[in-house]
Amino acid sequence: MTDSGELPISLVMFSGTEDKLQAAAVLTAGAAALGRPVHIFLQYWALEAFRADRINGPFPLAPEAGELGADAVEKMRVAGQQSWAETLRQAKEIGEVDIQACSLSMDVLKIEEDDLDPLVDGVEGVTAFYINAGDGHIVFI
Amino acid sequence: MTDSGELPISLVMFSGTEDKLQAAAVLTAGAAALGRPVHIFLQYWALEAFRADRINGPFPLAPEAGELGADAVEKMRVAGQQSWAETLRQAKEIGEVDIQACSLSMDVLKIEEDDLDPLVDGVEGVTAFYINAGDGHIVFI
Amino acid sequence: MTDSGELPISLVMFSGTEDKLQAAAVLTAGAAALGRPVHIFLQYWALEAFRADRINGPFPLAPEAGELGADAVEKMRVAGQQSWAETLRQAKEIGEVDIQACSLSMDVLKIEEDDLDPLVDGVEGVTAFYINAGDGHIVFI
Repeated sequence: MTDSGELPISLVMFSGTEDKLQAAAVLTAGAAALGRPVHIFLQYWALEAFRADRINGPFPLAPEAGELGADAVEKMRVAGQQSWAETLRQAKEIGEVDIQACSLSMDVLKIEEDDLDPLVDGVEGVTAFYINAGDGHIVFI
Repeated sequence: MTDSGELPISLVMFSGTEDKLQAAAVLTAGAAALGRPVHIFLQYWALEAFRADRINGPFPLAPEAGELGADAVEKMRVAGQQSWAETLRQAKEIGEVDIQACSLSMDVLKIEEDDLDPLVDGVEGVTAFYINAGDGHIVFI
Repeated sequence: MTDSGELPISLVMFSGTEDKLQAAAVLTAGAAALGRPVHIFLQYWALEAFRADRINGPFPLAPEAGELGADAVEKMRVAGQQSWAETLRQAKEIGEVDIQACSLSMDVLKIEEDDLDPLVDGVEGVTAFYINAGDGHIVFI
């Protein structure tokens, strides 16, 4: 086994629901804390969530959350739980986290680079994504 | 190519819909049958599904299932298809399958360790999850 | 780091929503363009989408798309955006793309091999899927 500590982890963020955005932010923060480079590739509804005028929410929950799940998540928010965007900002401060918008999703959703929050570092295509991912993990959320 | 047969497969189980729980159980059973260690990390709605008072279902289907899909899945259940929890129990008997609850999701959903079915082996944080995953596959469901 | 250019990428296609089918097709085309073999394993609602009488759509969107997202995707379709099935057909022409139906999902959904579009190359079980995946990436969509 080689030392995976140096391998990047690449996250395709696809979903724009509060629960999956939180999950992706936590997986990013954990990898950054371990010193692993993290590449994030934003597609579809996750890309929408990074629009400057959208990033502060609110975001929908997965339909399966149900009423009890929705209550639990809402209580955490009211109790001051850190937002996923803030978790990503902190992960960028402690580690090497690069966030790229998928050029094709930009076209589909008619989003311009100026529309995006400064958390987003740039725009790239899917082949660039694979090349940066190298031998590291690829996780689709 | 190294021999992936010895590498663990790590599943982040996030969703609590019947279809995805079944898919995760099948991926677990297949890996266990091949002699690969399986690490499962339970987040959000999948974690909810492992509550002792919830694990026997019923569970919702993904909204996209539609009426035909829902009928097909229901017919399998009535015909005696093994539940995903039972598939996981058997996978634990034939192989090395470790099931950990995500500590952060426990907090968000206000779940205590005593609330969980005995299938769950413990609670861990995301960095422990990455360390156990090592160079093996990571799959988010 | 070994040269990941020769490692296969294995996609478990689970979802049958237009957005995720498109995402999977783009990830396939990108990998094929880089010369990487792609193994696709069709489960549940993605398998349904490959039925010969279903593959030309229409397909639902993820509920989180909302009205604005749905409008954007519909405008692309009207403007002549290539369908995900056509993108997969082209990826098969330029690269090594193998599409297998999950035998268990065939049973659950009562689908016969003759029901499937010719894009599908065959039917296999989950252990065959893992063996073909080898050390390459596994991505669940």
